[in-house]
Amino acid sequence: MDIGIVGGSGYGGAEMLRLLGGHPTFRVRTVAAGSNAGQTLASVFPHLAGSALADTVLAPSEADALAGCDLVFLATPHEVSMALTPALLDGGAAVVDLSGAFRLDVDTFEAAYRMPHTAPALAPAAYGLPELFRAETAGARLVASPGCYPTASLLALAPLAGLIDPCSVAIVGMSGTSGAGKSLRDDLHVTHAIANVGAYGAPMHRHGPEIARAWSSILGEAVPLTFVPHLVPMARGLVCTVTASLRAGTHTDQVHAAYTKAYADEPFVTVLSEGAWPQTAHVSGGNGAQVGFAIDATAGRVVASCAIDNLVKGAAGQALQSANLILGVPEGAGLTAAGTYP
Amino acid sequence: MDIGIVGGSGYGGAEMLRLLGGHPTFRVRTVAAGSNAGQTLASVFPHLAGSALADTVLAPSEADALAGCDLVFLATPHEVSMALTPALLDGGAAVVDLSGAFRLDVDTFEAAYRMPHTAPALAPAAYGLPELFRAETAGARLVASPGCYPTASLLALAPLAGLIDPCSVAIVGMSGTSGAGKSLRDDLHVTHAIANVGAYGAPMHRHGPEIARAWSSILGEAVPLTFVPHLVPMARGLVCTVTASLRAGTHTDQVHAAYTKAYADEPFVTVLSEGAWPQTAHVSGGNGAQVGFAIDATAGRVVASCAIDNLVKGAAGQALQSANLILGVPEGAGLTAAGTYP
Amino acid sequence: MDIGIVGGSGYGGAEMLRLLGGHPTFRVRTVAAGSNAGQTLASVFPHLAGSALADTVLAPSEADALAGCDLVFLATPHEVSMALTPALLDGGAAVVDLSGAFRLDVDTFEAAYRMPHTAPALAPAAYGLPELFRAETAGARLVASPGCYPTASLLALAPLAGLIDPCSVAIVGMSGTSGAGKSLRDDLHVTHAIANVGAYGAPMHRHGPEIARAWSSILGEAVPLTFVPHLVPMARGLVCTVTASLRAGTHTDQVHAAYTKAYADEPFVTVLSEGAWPQTAHVSGGNGAQVGFAIDATAGRVVASCAIDNLVKGAAGQALQSANLILGVPEGAGLTAAGTYP
Amino acid sequence: MDIGIVGGSGYGGAEMLRLLGGHPTFRVRTVAAGSNAGQTLASVFPHLAGSALADTVLAPSEADALAGCDLVFLATPHEVSMALTPALLDGGAAVVDLSGAFRLDVDTFEAAYRMPHTAPALAPAAYGLPELFRAETAGARLVASPGCYPTASLLALAPLAGLIDPCSVAIVGMSGTSGAGKSLRDDLHVTHAIANVGAYGAPMHRHGPEIARAWSSILGEAVPLTFVPHLVPMARGLVCTVTASLRAGTHTDQVHAAYTKAYADEPFVTVLSEGAWPQTAHVSGGNGAQVGFAIDATAGRVVASCAIDNLVKGAAGQALQSANLILGVPEGAGLTAAGTYP
Repeated sequence: MDIGIVGGSGYGGAEMLRLLGGHPTFRVRTVAAGSNAGQTLASVFPHLAGSALADTVLAPSEADALAGCDLVFLATPHEVSMALTPALLDGGAAVVDLSGAFRLDVDTFEAAYRMPHTAPALAPAAYGLPELFRAETAGARLVASPGCYPTASLLALAPLAGLIDPCSVAIVGMSGTSGAGKSLRDDLHVTHAIANVGAYGAPMHRHGPEIARAWSSILGEAVPLTFVPHLVPMARGLVCTVTASLRAGTHTDQVHAAYTKAYADEPFVTVLSEGAWPQTAHVSGGNGAQVGFAIDATAGRVVASCAIDNLVKGAAGQALQSANLILGVPEGAGLTAAGTYP
Repeated sequence: MDIGIVGGSGYGGAEMLRLLGGHPTFRVRTVAAGSNAGQTLASVFPHLAGSALADTVLAPSEADALAGCDLVFLATPHEVSMALTPALLDGGAAVVDLSGAFRLDVDTFEAAYRMPHTAPALAPAAYGLPELFRAETAGARLVASPGCYPTASLLALAPLAGLIDPCSVAIVGMSGTSGAGKSLRDDLHVTHAIANVGAYGAPMHRHGPEIARAWSSILGEAVPLTFVPHLVPMARGLVCTVTASLRAGTHTDQVHAAYTKAYADEPFVTVLSEGAWPQTAHVSGGNGAQVGFAIDATAGRVVASCAIDNLVKGAAGQALQSANLILGVPEGAGLTAAGTYP
Repeated sequence: MDIGIVGGSGYGGAEMLRLLGGHPTFRVRTVAAGSNAGQTLASVFPHLAGSALADTVLAPSEADALAGCDLVFLATPHEVSMALTPALLDGGAAVVDLSGAFRLDVDTFEAAYRMPHTAPALAPAAYGLPELFRAETAGARLVASPGCYPTASLLALAPLAGLIDPCSVAIVGMSGTSGAGKSLRDDLHVTHAIANVGAYGAPMHRHGPEIARAWSSILGEAVPLTFVPHLVPMARGLVCTVTASLRAGTHTDQVHAAYTKAYADEPFVTVLSEGAWPQTAHVSGGNGAQVGFAIDATAGRVVASCAIDNLVKGAAGQALQSANLILGVPEGAGLTAAGTYP
Repeated sequence: MDIGIVGGSGYGGAEMLRLLGGHPTFRVRTVAAGSNAGQTLASVFPHLAGSALADTVLAPSEADALAGCDLVFLATPHEVSMALTPALLDGGAAVVDLSGAFRLDVDTFEAAYRMPHTAPALAPAAYGLPELFRAETAGARLVASPGCYPTASLLALAPLAGLIDPCSVAIVGMSGTSGAGKSLRDDLHVTHAIANVGAYGAPMHRHGPEIARAWSSILGEAVPLTFVPHLVPMARGLVCTVTASLRAGTHTDQVHAAYTKAYADEPFVTVLSEGAWPQTAHVSGGNGAQVGFAIDATAGRVVASCAIDNLVKGAAGQALQSANLILGVPEGAGLTAAGTYP
């Protein structure tokens, strides 16, 4: 099957290229980029200098350049995704969008992203978190692939539905620096960031409403939650730690059973034994997620934490899971739970 | 004044030596250590090879070796602190203990530390967090210097008393690796830890009851809270981020006023403008704490975060603040809010 | 073809498992380990918790346990490699040894490794650096896979034969911490090593004579050289930078031509344009090597530098290249030059 | 004594402010900066938010603004140093310049820095490396404070004069990222640089001719050398490792005696026992230098290595040493060999 990638000069695009290089049936037909169009992949990504992709010339980010693709991954800014998607769908391609363009309803999008939605008929799209929303993903032509923080947060949180006070959820996220993108900023200068930890963006970070929407969807009622992201000094990896109040009378066994039931058949999610905590080093480079939990009996709360690689399960890997579902190949094709270690 | 340090071969002891080197009136009389007694400081700490302290021979960790000291810092394991403190006090020295031995009432200590308290008459001692408990610190002969997480947590949390639901507090901590000590463990091997983030120890980490006790003391009633620490890949620095439910009708202005009032006259605490978040890189090597906060109006919560250097304001620096108070010299002697940058 | 791995509980073994997971025709039949025999891979390597290999039980490091393997990778200590290899060869398996056991002649081995050689009839074996010694590798039943520093050093140095004074070579190496193995040591504690650089082991590091032997072999005469390794704070990646005196009258064009000629047909080696320098970040996770050089006309020297991933091209990846050659499958099967980025 | 700092918004200026804060007799009268003039120090340096300097307003980088200063530190670009120095000297101030403006003779400067020298009558100035050139430093009104790489290189190299072939010197440097300054560049983005090592700038890096000039000055004849710098992933710290051919018949004892003699009375230089290697973690934050060496008997070479903190002994600390000498206060005032650990 012929695949297109738009936004091939960012980290998400590079990771998608890496994963597709090992896919048994997908073939990369076109790699497109905005300002880097016309350049070779090796000139944009020095790590590709010796690879078979080195001399691939980046096409422009236009629907015509992607004609003939069965499926297109958009690793593009929100506004580019909104501009390209209608034409790509009209042209017959399925679309998996890694931006925030189609994850929210139009009103919430416009409030959180502070821009008008230019393809409102398509929002919200199917939410491509297969472990929680597999059916809607498999049947879609347009999938909004979740953000990195929402992926980890929801994998930790979803099994708790029915066991906790829905409005009591607070989430603290910790992300490696690749989550902040390639742009040059003082706070991302290596000398500042190499030994630094701090919160940022809270409480209005765009991933907050995205988590809240999916959580509300699981519950069947709209509930707010609080999300506070932090940047930590490593290139890859992300942890979200959730605290919530247990409903009176909830036992540890019920919590344990909920996690076990949720993920027993999920090859990419590992549930740790109670009190063992997930580590980003154990999922780096792979599509796996590790989930841990414990009960704080004194305070009547549950603590749950999930670790993923923000560029794989939090971006390119999960998008590939959705693409596999859409195109009817095995969901795990081209993906492994285990990545590189160390 | 003559000062003793016990536990001079750990990170806390090394940092204490560094700070005392710049103190105008304190003189280090004795440096003692357990298993390293008889060795020189340079053999234990290669960074001291070229310093005036290089040839100082470590005394044994015994009260007799510390005779003549006006004040002794204990940077020792809990059981050593319990064993030494009564004799040191009897000998006329004041004691600032950096271990957990005297921070809790005896029952809570024995539950959290899983050992019997061997000096129960002295626990709990004055809690040496001067910005919140200055009077009790200044008048004490024995001060329990707070843990690193409790220091950051309480500086972020204390001004919120009266504005939040007291039982709604959840705290997520992120500490640099020096907080885990010098012992050799698989999870502290550089190859594992250099690009890794994960929770640990929750929900039974010993600093949880310590934070709860001080928070309850501020409120005048016993309330539980949830605390989840994480290890992050940097040598120094610590952030605690607090979430709590605002009392109905609480306005941002009241929160802002509470922080301003609490710390307006505190030279070591800087309150950032709303929505700016503290960074560990900005307090590294110094005794300063930076505090930030924001209101999550949708969820009705306040988020507050505090960054410190875990070895300075979270350990040796704060202990020196207490010692200054006890001995009647200016509280900030030998200390600066600003450390090294970058 | 059926493959065995001995030493599957170290970093080299883990990386070999990762690479073999993507190999088109090799099948892992047995994974053996010394002290971890009887445990599952998931209990030794938490990153494998969610993988298909999780429940694989480690066999003992004995030849019988490996019966039926077409080829065995030894990622074992030198003494274990010496003990196992004769029986494995006798049993009909080919062997690719990642230890230092068979890289040197017996006398040099015994001086450098300070132990007697217990399989002297087999030393030295074919030296499995295909880009420089392909013919001897392809025809061997026992291959000594090169050390990480020698791989990078020789890829930078070999093309200069005939252009430089053979005795003028000095090499400075910089390795990520995974090169130091998993054992617990004070200098590998994360708090010490996370922001530290220093030399170690020089001038008697075992990789010095290994580089010298291969360099002498290329020249056809025995020449000494100086090698100084350094540890740098990252988990993976290795650079060796070579300086040597140019023969009088040597022009830049000749140096450039030598590198181009040496590696024009080598898919895993990229020669950068003069004055561009290789970066470990551009080869991390892949089997590629990047080589750069420049002429210091004032001093009459050439500077050449090579970057590799110490665990891939410097260990498991290169061993797989050799195995592919031995078993007659395409040399690059299961390998890519480009790894993960960032 | 009244001190001025120009370039107070860079890392060198920040470090100078930190050190002067602990100086017994120097008082900071004026802090000036170019594009940041008019701003407060706290707005430029968030780590100073809680310090006594927070509200200091940066003066413009003009000689008039510095009137009344007994001594001015210039932590400015080369062209600014050339422009300011004549007027400052005319106004009666002594000047310690941390830029490269006055370290070289005019011809070498113009070739290496690719700009005309606008104050040629003042170049070269006294070279402020007190351990090697104390007399000329103490008697100067203008001191060129050495670069970071030259400081470490020369401390390792100088004692070898007379024992080695003067033309056989090759130096490999490894610097933390603060040496590259605050400017935003792709290669200094944290996500690229946090786990990366590579050479840069060789063989024409400006510090090469600076090292060669001082080395030639020590020898009394002009000799070339080769210098290859590398960037390593840590904020602070620098190692230079030197290799050189020993003169025939030179014994280890002579090398050991040369180092001992050179630094026996130098409080800031520690000579390690043969075969022990200096580590940047042991000098971080302090003005100390650690030097190690070993003989490679096979190759007839000596290896010597020196570790410093690039911002202290490699910049602000060494400049303060020179200032102390010029103004006749104890050379070590305001300085300690030991810094922060860990």
